[in-house]
Amino acid sequence: MFATGMIEIETRVRMAETDLMQVAHHANYLRWFEMARVEYLRARNIVLKDLIDQGILFPIRDVQCDYKKSARYDDELIICAQLIAFTKVKIAFTYKVLRKSDGAILAEGATTNVFTDTAGKIVRLPEAIFNQIRT
Amino acid sequence: MFATGMIEIETRVRMAETDLMQVAHHANYLRWFEMARVEYLRARNIVLKDLIDQGILFPIRDVQCDYKKSARYDDELIICAQLIAFTKVKIAFTYKVLRKSDGAILAEGATTNVFTDTAGKIVRLPEAIFNQIRT
Amino acid sequence: MFATGMIEIETRVRMAETDLMQVAHHANYLRWFEMARVEYLRARNIVLKDLIDQGILFPIRDVQCDYKKSARYDDELIICAQLIAFTKVKIAFTYKVLRKSDGAILAEGATTNVFTDTAGKIVRLPEAIFNQIRT
Amino acid sequence: MFATGMIEIETRVRMAETDLMQVAHHANYLRWFEMARVEYLRARNIVLKDLIDQGILFPIRDVQCDYKKSARYDDELIICAQLIAFTKVKIAFTYKVLRKSDGAILAEGATTNVFTDTAGKIVRLPEAIFNQIRT
Repeated sequence: MFATGMIEIETRVRMAETDLMQVAHHANYLRWFEMARVEYLRARNIVLKDLIDQGILFPIRDVQCDYKKSARYDDELIICAQLIAFTKVKIAFTYKVLRKSDGAILAEGATTNVFTDTAGKIVRLPEAIFNQIRT
Repeated sequence: MFATGMIEIETRVRMAETDLMQVAHHANYLRWFEMARVEYLRARNIVLKDLIDQGILFPIRDVQCDYKKSARYDDELIICAQLIAFTKVKIAFTYKVLRKSDGAILAEGATTNVFTDTAGKIVRLPEAIFNQIRT
Repeated sequence: MFATGMIEIETRVRMAETDLMQVAHHANYLRWFEMARVEYLRARNIVLKDLIDQGILFPIRDVQCDYKKSARYDDELIICAQLIAFTKVKIAFTYKVLRKSDGAILAEGATTNVFTDTAGKIVRLPEAIFNQIRT
Repeated sequence: MFATGMIEIETRVRMAETDLMQVAHHANYLRWFEMARVEYLRARNIVLKDLIDQGILFPIRDVQCDYKKSARYDDELIICAQLIAFTKVKIAFTYKVLRKSDGAILAEGATTNVFTDTAGKIVRLPEAIFNQIRT
């Protein structure tokens, strides 16, 4: 019921993502994690919009992030997402945010998403989708 | 087919709304305009979620904003929305963003929203809703 | 070196805070936590901008959030922040996000911020500020 | 005192950029415009952080956007920015947001930024920087 795999994406800190402390606001790391998750699934031919259209939602259950160094405006970042747990009812990843210029680790985090119907009730992923993500 | 009316709401500039130029990022003004629109309608017993649930969307058609002075972190703001045009297919407002401490005008703007179905086709507001907003 | 105290603030889920799964995007909870922290300090006459102007920054060190129920568009929320640890070099809070209509707990979280100079080096809070927050 | 030039960047609509009407929230277009401006200047070796570090800010003076079709979650977008006016005190661009899959124009907009010191007073760009952007 477990699978492993990794993906790396790149992004650049936008002006609108900074705050008056001159660094990327900490809430943006959660958006970057999400971008990496999305690409992880896309690489397995899963487009989240298709799941939504089938009535399958994937709300976040928990998130955790340790901030080590600040990401600054215009920094190029590498976001690594690693699948650490995957069953028909949930999917969990860990993340690293690296500064591209020197490889410094800026943050490490983790998330769990569950699969639900549109009413918020936990559902089991259809076999076909499960196998697609698992590969 | 025209109605007039005004509403004032208050908000405070959040840390996450600032950027490294030490001021509120300009995209936030559009969110503040929207908050004022929402309250304008709520004061007439229109909750936008109910419209959505009836399959009526209200995408923005155009927006315009003149920025005069910067809103800064923690500033208390007054957002005034004035209805300037309203028909069964569109609704338009103008806005002023004021700094509460001294009444300085920080920005002036305008928006038009149209009413559409979920496929994006323009629809006419049901008579009952139209009359409710018009009052 | 420890102090306790609590604050409650209210906010309403903005349209711009929702996502296509029809709920508030999970990154917004971190912004709401921050709003509560800011008000906690304001109630003790600490305005974060003043700290920044004195060269004292307060970057986030870690954040954690468990999401239990979804906050939806237009929901009125109560955010409770409870100080759980405070020394001259760091400040930690736990949070609850409640739905105002029925008191349901939507999320629980925790954050730690540290105090640094503008170069990112840990500094000790000046005695006067420390005592002001502590009361 | 006028120069012309264009740049195209690509981005993809993020989950956190969508709202409950299932489309990208309209405030995000301003962020995309800004991303294109930033890249326009970067292509001329101007990094905005360097300007800020020299005490030159570039607050937005006005923005305007016409929304024609909705950008949806996961859509790949092309943002074109065209310089339309540039003097030592201001810089103006027009923008087009295109859906990459079919080239449909989703939005058209315009912005003007001015150059100021940190107190908000209009300043003239140093000759060297002016010439660098102008090329």
